[in-house]
Amino acid sequence: MPEPHPSPANSPDPAAGSTPDVGNLAIGVLGGTGAEGRGLAHRFALSGNPVIIGSRSAERAAAAAAGLGGGSGIRGMTNQEAARAADVVIVAVPWEGHRELLASLAAELAGKVVIDCVNPIGFDSRGAYPLRVAEGSAAEQAADVLPDSRVVGAFHHVSSVLLLDPQLSEVSQDVLVLGDDREATGLVQALAGRIPGMRGVYAGRLRNCGQVEALTANLVAINRRYKAHSGLRVTDI
Amino acid sequence: MPEPHPSPANSPDPAAGSTPDVGNLAIGVLGGTGAEGRGLAHRFALSGNPVIIGSRSAERAAAAAAGLGGGSGIRGMTNQEAARAADVVIVAVPWEGHRELLASLAAELAGKVVIDCVNPIGFDSRGAYPLRVAEGSAAEQAADVLPDSRVVGAFHHVSSVLLLDPQLSEVSQDVLVLGDDREATGLVQALAGRIPGMRGVYAGRLRNCGQVEALTANLVAINRRYKAHSGLRVTDI
Repeated sequence: MPEPHPSPANSPDPAAGSTPDVGNLAIGVLGGTGAEGRGLAHRFALSGNPVIIGSRSAERAAAAAAGLGGGSGIRGMTNQEAARAADVVIVAVPWEGHRELLASLAAELAGKVVIDCVNPIGFDSRGAYPLRVAEGSAAEQAADVLPDSRVVGAFHHVSSVLLLDPQLSEVSQDVLVLGDDREATGLVQALAGRIPGMRGVYAGRLRNCGQVEALTANLVAINRRYKAHSGLRVTDI
Repeated sequence: MPEPHPSPANSPDPAAGSTPDVGNLAIGVLGGTGAEGRGLAHRFALSGNPVIIGSRSAERAAAAAAGLGGGSGIRGMTNQEAARAADVVIVAVPWEGHRELLASLAAELAGKVVIDCVNPIGFDSRGAYPLRVAEGSAAEQAADVLPDSRVVGAFHHVSSVLLLDPQLSEVSQDVLVLGDDREATGLVQALAGRIPGMRGVYAGRLRNCGQVEALTANLVAINRRYKAHSGLRVTDI
């Protein structure tokens, strides 16, 4: 691969010295009744963050919250209420309807860090493949319809099965974090680091998020071949 | 991420039971005078495979081979001679001219496993970004112009700095291997496994190679931020 900038030695994440305190941030999860949304809600609640599951239906959101354990500090609301009440919002909705939902919540999400973990992936008889996205990626689409939010791409490759597995105390993989706002990516890296086993790794600007989302198709292929719930670790950092 | 096929437990690579014997295969490296090509040539020669460095200039190929150590079983030839003489051919040429070079060698490469490790990446003031490829990926372009070859994508994320570092006895990362010909991907996985520290991981069909190539832009961003030579490991397999 290209090595345009030789780098003599490893060093700790430059952002690590100023890791923001994110333990008290209320995390809203739009589309939080899906497997991925529930999984992330569960892990962040376990880590001690207040969590709000959002859904089109407040009743289903409440049921999902209750299903994850009442004592864990998870509440359920409509997506709109969750977007308004949360400090940081994770977008875990299906790709279909992604743009419309976010556009409808632009006012509630203004000024907030919005974490998009949506993977535009299709399936056919030969397996998974990336869908074409006019904006380049789901995260760039989010940034397009949420000009007043601070959009970060992250958590694309985290298996919901692992997140929801009650036997697993750690989810051992890295989370690639992408965005153009360094404070926002640092915050999301810190959030990822609150889940035992996980590490948030800055992985580029938002314009480089498309291939990270698309790589999910490769992980699906790996999962089929190896009967696994694969994820990634970045080496040498 | 999507989990369309729940899988209860890990299991070894199904291909592992029938790992092909690839220790005697002569490996040709087109564009083998570049850093990536020399690095791969060096590591395969260390592992005991006969290696042929190809270049537009036979003289420069011979010089590169000599520079990697005369006793290591590396020879230098023109790209055409290397393509003809090798059992397996690695394409490590610049993206510019990729199609033309391969088209000119279609006869020599017919029937052979051709490993494309080319990353179509551009650079501007904001860093690296993936170039648009009409065929979807460099590997698919190779398959398009080499209809009689067995094209596999692999070795996209391996740092030439690490490959060429004489202090490093292992290169500890996974190599994502993509292709539509299972015997060919199995062979390339086995080849990757000959380099200490490396593991060849099947990562999908050729149509899913574009995002693997493009992900190199993310690794470049990671390298800049963390002053590293990053690579990937796949977890849970």
